[in-house]
Amino acid sequence: MAEPGSGMAADIAEQPEVFARLLDEHSGAIAEVAAQIAKRRPRNVIFTARGTSDHAALYAAYLTEIRLGVPAGLASPSAITVYGARPDLRDCLVVGVSQSGGSPDLGEVIRVAREQGALTLAVTNAPSSPLATAAELHIDISAGAERAVAATKTYTAELLALHMLIEGVRAPAGRLGKQERAALAKLPRLAEETLADNTAVELAGRYRFAARVVTTGRGYAYPTAREAALKLMETSYLAALAFSGADLLHGPLAMADPDVPVLAVVGAGPGGQSMRDVLARLGERRADLVVVGPGGSDVDTKAGRSPLRVPTPAVDERYGPLLDILPLQRLALALALARGENPDAPRGLKKVTATL
Amino acid sequence: MAEPGSGMAADIAEQPEVFARLLDEHSGAIAEVAAQIAKRRPRNVIFTARGTSDHAALYAAYLTEIRLGVPAGLASPSAITVYGARPDLRDCLVVGVSQSGGSPDLGEVIRVAREQGALTLAVTNAPSSPLATAAELHIDISAGAERAVAATKTYTAELLALHMLIEGVRAPAGRLGKQERAALAKLPRLAEETLADNTAVELAGRYRFAARVVTTGRGYAYPTAREAALKLMETSYLAALAFSGADLLHGPLAMADPDVPVLAVVGAGPGGQSMRDVLARLGERRADLVVVGPGGSDVDTKAGRSPLRVPTPAVDERYGPLLDILPLQRLALALALARGENPDAPRGLKKVTATL
Repeated sequence: MAEPGSGMAADIAEQPEVFARLLDEHSGAIAEVAAQIAKRRPRNVIFTARGTSDHAALYAAYLTEIRLGVPAGLASPSAITVYGARPDLRDCLVVGVSQSGGSPDLGEVIRVAREQGALTLAVTNAPSSPLATAAELHIDISAGAERAVAATKTYTAELLALHMLIEGVRAPAGRLGKQERAALAKLPRLAEETLADNTAVELAGRYRFAARVVTTGRGYAYPTAREAALKLMETSYLAALAFSGADLLHGPLAMADPDVPVLAVVGAGPGGQSMRDVLARLGERRADLVVVGPGGSDVDTKAGRSPLRVPTPAVDERYGPLLDILPLQRLALALALARGENPDAPRGLKKVTATL
Repeated sequence: MAEPGSGMAADIAEQPEVFARLLDEHSGAIAEVAAQIAKRRPRNVIFTARGTSDHAALYAAYLTEIRLGVPAGLASPSAITVYGARPDLRDCLVVGVSQSGGSPDLGEVIRVAREQGALTLAVTNAPSSPLATAAELHIDISAGAERAVAATKTYTAELLALHMLIEGVRAPAGRLGKQERAALAKLPRLAEETLADNTAVELAGRYRFAARVVTTGRGYAYPTAREAALKLMETSYLAALAFSGADLLHGPLAMADPDVPVLAVVGAGPGGQSMRDVLARLGERRADLVVVGPGGSDVDTKAGRSPLRVPTPAVDERYGPLLDILPLQRLALALALARGENPDAPRGLKKVTATL
């Protein structure tokens, strides 16, 4: 039997290579899909996904609104699959995101969306899956088979594929401009550098006996906070609560005290700036704060303690999610091992989750 | 000084009266707003809200998709307020939901949405608030001043006002049909009966030393699961994690063990039926399960234990959220008191939360 965690470790380590492969070998295919979407000019984009892929979809919804100026949101599959809703989806783009492409409820949403007049797209790691074949358009994230049950490389591959797609919709014939290509070309090396830093792994000792953790971020960093919480839940069985920085102030802040570790994802742009008040309030409550990301260095937590820091490269915030999650994946892996768990095969979970 | 929790207790007890007032005195005003929306025929509805009001907005998004056949979703204010997104919102309805109407980011979203061509509506408990005055249309939920920081009666008033509005959009001139009016007219009495049952309050003893709790539900019951988790976090400082039943199987299920109490909201319709598999899987993991609601009586949890039950009236699932939350509010209040906390004034929270 393989060493516990060796599968997840290999998946995590492969991410720079997965980025390079998507950029080198799939730019053309993604540009074609982008061009087709641009031609149809959708007035509204609806994403549908579950679990980890839901966080990739959330990132894509921010990108769609900010970069394309098109309203975007995440759909609850149950409105269609459980209650039989048949919304009028003409001029809408409906995007299903799923590494396995095997979840029956997402396939059903795409099938109904197509009947209801939507342009449909599947983003999967499984080109012959039911989801991929149900949709009019398909993007293969081409991350290779994932060894662990907890998704890591398929998550960042979904992020990058969706990023390339959405930037492509803005560009002539779906082909990214020189500046965008240059920024993306740096990602494999930046991912390698990020993975070479061991600060996050050292946190595993600190959290060995934590029963719960709060993660937070705003804007582009919010999907990272959500995904970090899910990884910690599914590998280390921590009660991990993710909040947008703004929502944290609406109630859950009461829960934060010096016994609750807080992981705050803070970028080097407007999203990170908008976390200043959140970080200050957490400081007032003497939360045990760790700042992940390049931002927040000027934070005064008022508690006389500087927060611990997990550094990641200071990129434009819209590339941040591709890098900031890497140390958090490694933290989840290290913490699971420190607790004597096997993150490759969490209790009670299967790789393909069938929900109807 | 008032008895701790007396404010929250009074707010909770007032809910039947708040329902009756909305139905008796505000049907006409809501019908007028509904008729105006119906005339404009929005192609897409976007809700924006924070905290408790976000859960009312989630309920409204389900209703909009299922009852009106119009795609609906929840917007992240930060795309507009932090990153300056200016989406094309012609033919969209943008709805801000907020008890105080005082959150600057929601006001900003409504202001930008109006500039970008959207029809805008504010649903608040504060008719002269910045949010109410920024929107073209306004609905006053008229719940009266809330005594506690934790929102209870303003939540259910938002639910009912949004329900009356959305059913009104389907109806000629916004006026509800006979059957719908008859169903709604029963709500004040059903709410009284639900509040008279003490089963949930007795659970407070059981959860006295719980460090975390999982809440779950699908479809219309999912907002109830989310709101119950928030109430438990903000009054009792529990780590309360809410998941849609489907998402629970995608990862977080690994976290459930016999030490983690699970509150499952299970209706008497298709949403409740779709929880069968979730309840069975929780049984396999020997979770400490409490079923809230009229459904799930045929559940076989395979662990040889029947789940505890908190009964609520067996109404159509789309009315369920108005009743199922009531015992959960009482549980949050009782648990806070059992832990020696004052739920009227949770640590670190203010009634109006200003996020930019």
